Amino acid sequence: MRIALDAMGGDCGSELLIEGALAAVRDNRDFEVVLLGPSAELEKQVALLADTTLSSRLSIQHASQVVSMHESPVEAVRKKKDSTIMVGFDLVRQGKADAVVSAGNSGATLAAAVRKLGRLKGVARPGIASLFPTLKEPVILMDIGANVDCRPQHLFQFAIMAASCSRLLLGIERPRVGLLSIGEESGKGNALVKETHVLLRQSGLNFIGNVEGRDVYQGDVDVIVCDGFVGNISLKISEGLAEAAMQMLKDEIMKSLRAKIGYLLIRKAFARFRKRVDYAEYGGAPLLGIDGVGIICHGKSNAIAIKNGIEVAADMVRSRVNDSIRSSLEEYAT
Amino acid sequence: MRIALDAMGGDCGSELLIEGALAAVRDNRDFEVVLLGPSAELEKQVALLADTTLSSRLSIQHASQVVSMHESPVEAVRKKKDSTIMVGFDLVRQGKADAVVSAGNSGATLAAAVRKLGRLKGVARPGIASLFPTLKEPVILMDIGANVDCRPQHLFQFAIMAASCSRLLLGIERPRVGLLSIGEESGKGNALVKETHVLLRQSGLNFIGNVEGRDVYQGDVDVIVCDGFVGNISLKISEGLAEAAMQMLKDEIMKSLRAKIGYLLIRKAFARFRKRVDYAEYGGAPLLGIDGVGIICHGKSNAIAIKNGIEVAADMVRSRVNDSIRSSLEEYAT
Repeated sequence: MRIALDAMGGDCGSELLIEGALAAVRDNRDFEVVLLGPSAELEKQVALLADTTLSSRLSIQHASQVVSMHESPVEAVRKKKDSTIMVGFDLVRQGKADAVVSAGNSGATLAAAVRKLGRLKGVARPGIASLFPTLKEPVILMDIGANVDCRPQHLFQFAIMAASCSRLLLGIERPRVGLLSIGEESGKGNALVKETHVLLRQSGLNFIGNVEGRDVYQGDVDVIVCDGFVGNISLKISEGLAEAAMQMLKDEIMKSLRAKIGYLLIRKAFARFRKRVDYAEYGGAPLLGIDGVGIICHGKSNAIAIKNGIEVAADMVRSRVNDSIRSSLEEYAT
Repeated sequence: MRIALDAMGGDCGSELLIEGALAAVRDNRDFEVVLLGPSAELEKQVALLADTTLSSRLSIQHASQVVSMHESPVEAVRKKKDSTIMVGFDLVRQGKADAVVSAGNSGATLAAAVRKLGRLKGVARPGIASLFPTLKEPVILMDIGANVDCRPQHLFQFAIMAASCSRLLLGIERPRVGLLSIGEESGKGNALVKETHVLLRQSGLNFIGNVEGRDVYQGDVDVIVCDGFVGNISLKISEGLAEAAMQMLKDEIMKSLRAKIGYLLIRKAFARFRKRVDYAEYGGAPLLGIDGVGIICHGKSNAIAIKNGIEVAADMVRSRVNDSIRSSLEEYAT
């Protein structure tokens, strides 16, 4: 198995990305990593690595262009034919790689995947799923930003695709599917949600009804569907609140010596807490609905997050998530 | 000035609501509070209060019905003519009270206000604004749930109304207005946001452009507008995350003796932190766009939150927010 890693994507820098790749091949014997980027630059960096046994399991595929974080996905795919992500998904198309992982522009990564690999048969809108930490097991939320204006049928397919992910990646046999809304009753929500509710109720999926914003972190639902506008805001507002809350707490602690001493004693518990909520531990966000495997990592990923993203990609290849999505789409569509 | 308090609304119980009313009249000499509810029951409770000087500034207005939290607003207003909120807004209509405060069903409270008082001239959709804590000053977000399917004109008016609130209640001379979206660029967002962006840019308001979910808690914007579906999910997801995070942190602390001791030292800093983020400290959410003053408190309010809600209502009456909204609507509409 070969996982292609966009070695130029995101805000983290290629050194850190390569560190993640190295950690991934160290812990997994069944795949290699192909680094995508300017070959001269990447060769230099790989040559510096101390462990030659491991670095021999990294290869390089030249790509002369990089899509920046704020570039328009449509334009990026049209104009930058030799970008890391276009080259990566081209490798997958040619059977030379099994998946692409990128911490770069998520919209452009999805667009490149669709362009090079196409959609799975019957999928109207591919999207991006993401794991959210909860008080119990993580929940998969889809879509987190690829599709801002959705129709009920799109949300219905998000539910099917994310449920396949939940089964195969998280081992949940019959995932509980919830529809993100502003009240538990079926009549609550906007027009999109009300129509989607009917589709899901009739679907044969394990649909538990509407869930509210406050249910997301409780862990009593395995899959939550929403349009990409709502999903992206949910994700970003959570990240923003977590950061702001840590900052406020730090400010309050720094106001007294007593609290500072307390903090020294509590530090490890804090670290465990952070690890529990940190996106880095949850690795990448799968692109679902494309005819292949693609993983998007957070733009601010560290090496652990990249390693996890690569491992999630390998998991998706091993467990044949797309076969499951294909058969689920056929099963639930009829 | 007389503020009417729904003494039966919410999950908190009338004892706690009366405690909040008592605290409000203790700290403010320029208003009295009218308790709305079954008079026999309320009279009993008020008779038990020790401080007769203060309790003489509480009066009771009989209302035989209560709207429950999950009742349909439309039906509640149609069927329960003698509910606390209907009676309350009727007092305002008759000039016998200046505002209504309720911790009950927010949709029904808004519907009752519209039924009894009507909308301010030119307002298409009244809505609910709410204060969110940030790293700096609180931000006003509107709408948080009254209007799930909105048109650009509605969001535009939310911006005007919330900006008036920001000026008069928070003293911000020229509030920075942001539009909640999934990217800072004007082209990012769903169809509703893209059209609203154009209206706001041309408006003469101090529009700073799109803001993302992660900007909500930074404090670099004074007013954020969004439709009620997105706003409600933003609010609920924040509450849910804050609760879950505190629970997770507590779990981690309880795992070691060292951390438990640390917690004892850090406790006060924690309390200050909680106070900073706690909705109770931020009091009520103003109904904006109705021809009168109405405040909704959180269903799980404590006495402090009720007191704050009553004080916000009094502030809105004193500062004539509706006059400002009226003239802003005229100014910016042309």
